[in-house]
Amino acid sequence: MKVAVIGAGAVGMLLSAFALKAGIKVSLFTKREEQSIRLNHSGLTLIQSNQDNPETLSRGLSAQPISSWTTEGLDAVIVSVKQLHLDEVLGILSKKRIKVPVIFALNGMGHMEKAQVSLKDAPLYGSVLTHGAKRSTDYEGVIHTGKGTWKAGSWRGESETVEFLMKKLQEAGFFSSCEENIEKLMEEKLAVNAVINPLTALYQVKNGALLDNPLFKENARAVFKEITKVIPFKWETVERVIVNTRKNHSSMHEDIRLGRETEVDAITGYLLSLAEKRQVTMPLVSFLHHSIKGVERSYDDDR
Amino acid sequence: MKVAVIGAGAVGMLLSAFALKAGIKVSLFTKREEQSIRLNHSGLTLIQSNQDNPETLSRGLSAQPISSWTTEGLDAVIVSVKQLHLDEVLGILSKKRIKVPVIFALNGMGHMEKAQVSLKDAPLYGSVLTHGAKRSTDYEGVIHTGKGTWKAGSWRGESETVEFLMKKLQEAGFFSSCEENIEKLMEEKLAVNAVINPLTALYQVKNGALLDNPLFKENARAVFKEITKVIPFKWETVERVIVNTRKNHSSMHEDIRLGRETEVDAITGYLLSLAEKRQVTMPLVSFLHHSIKGVERSYDDDR
Repeated sequence: MKVAVIGAGAVGMLLSAFALKAGIKVSLFTKREEQSIRLNHSGLTLIQSNQDNPETLSRGLSAQPISSWTTEGLDAVIVSVKQLHLDEVLGILSKKRIKVPVIFALNGMGHMEKAQVSLKDAPLYGSVLTHGAKRSTDYEGVIHTGKGTWKAGSWRGESETVEFLMKKLQEAGFFSSCEENIEKLMEEKLAVNAVINPLTALYQVKNGALLDNPLFKENARAVFKEITKVIPFKWETVERVIVNTRKNHSSMHEDIRLGRETEVDAITGYLLSLAEKRQVTMPLVSFLHHSIKGVERSYDDDR
Repeated sequence: MKVAVIGAGAVGMLLSAFALKAGIKVSLFTKREEQSIRLNHSGLTLIQSNQDNPETLSRGLSAQPISSWTTEGLDAVIVSVKQLHLDEVLGILSKKRIKVPVIFALNGMGHMEKAQVSLKDAPLYGSVLTHGAKRSTDYEGVIHTGKGTWKAGSWRGESETVEFLMKKLQEAGFFSSCEENIEKLMEEKLAVNAVINPLTALYQVKNGALLDNPLFKENARAVFKEITKVIPFKWETVERVIVNTRKNHSSMHEDIRLGRETEVDAITGYLLSLAEKRQVTMPLVSFLHHSIKGVERSYDDDR
């Protein structure tokens, strides 16, 4: 079996590493050519946070820049790029008709609708990934910072290949499964992220502060309550995620801290578009959306 | 004529300096004894931002710690402490019956209601001050950073002394006047502060960013609109204040930056109490209130 993994960030490398461990051949497509040269030369290193020894995987791995994209010989495609590179990647993928299943490992929801339009024949799978992953600074590779799950489910069409892939990954020690109602799971993840990410980015605090600081918690609950106008979910789900990631910085907090563009369009932006369709108002989500986009915009300003 | 000025922060020293320039005797009551010793020893220095020469005023000035509070020989009292020291100061003032007018030069509104209860006989005046003042780091004194106005008006009772005082200050070059409807002016100032202060503190930006950054402006307008539910005022007023203070850091921004307690209770807290009385909801003001109080609370936390 051979899969293409598009995007060699933390998540792309994590998925590639466990696929390789499962004996699956991996074509890893990188944004920059240097990274694929390094990966072909030194292999991909996986560091499990609870183990001392980094494991370097090179058997079955071939890396290449996304510019040399090809569908040849593939059984499945996994897309694991940031939202902000999605349009570019979909543009490249859509140039060659794909008939094998394409699984998206991205935050948010909007990308599935975009993929539906630009990718014609392929079965499409959405997924929710809660494994923790962080790029290694010492190696070309990834640190598996926390065990979670990877749940994929059909968005359009069905494929036994995906079930086989998830089973193989699961056997390699990477909790993975196929899910019936992936849309619901993705929505719930998005809703939880919409509570945690903008607030932690705005306050520049670790996730745990949203429970530990009673005033921040009050605001988190108010945002949660507003989101339930368009996506039904439980406060307990938010609490559970915060407890499990108590000491982490959310991705949006990191992005803001490092002066990078965030995924706010895919998160609060998506909620606001839902709200507009259903003609409900979301003053807090709207405020948070503008706040994060405003902060992004002010990176270069004199404060 | 002799006035007591209670509180020798930037505003207290600014008012004292111009009173001295107007030939009025000033008893300046300080929080700490050291400051009154320095003031008695070296005088109070006034630096006008457009002039080179600092002016040191000592004739007619006597400074003492607030612990030695006395009402003897006074024609008026000016209170210019921070909201967070108000209760303590009212406690001290209320120990000796005051019959001369008491003028409050504080932000917010809530202090007038408190003063009404704790000070029995005195005519009470509220005021709105838009002069810019900053403590001097080189001298025991104050920098007059921007010319504004000081408008005072009766809250309870009347006194010709206040009119005389304002006229004297005006003659000394410090724009001052008596106003009929001071409550309305104070409310409007509070409403404007409630837009500018929490947002600039949260985003850690200069006041001007609330107009220059279109996304921050959108949020400022949304907060403004919410506040008009309880206090009628115009967006143009907010814009004018921002334009005039474009390059300044708001006091709340400074307080947050320096890890100090803010005046958020007197500003958004007051609005929320109004909203509760009138049974309207203010999701954004409430969010901002909790945000600032939450940030205050997290000063010592590991972020």
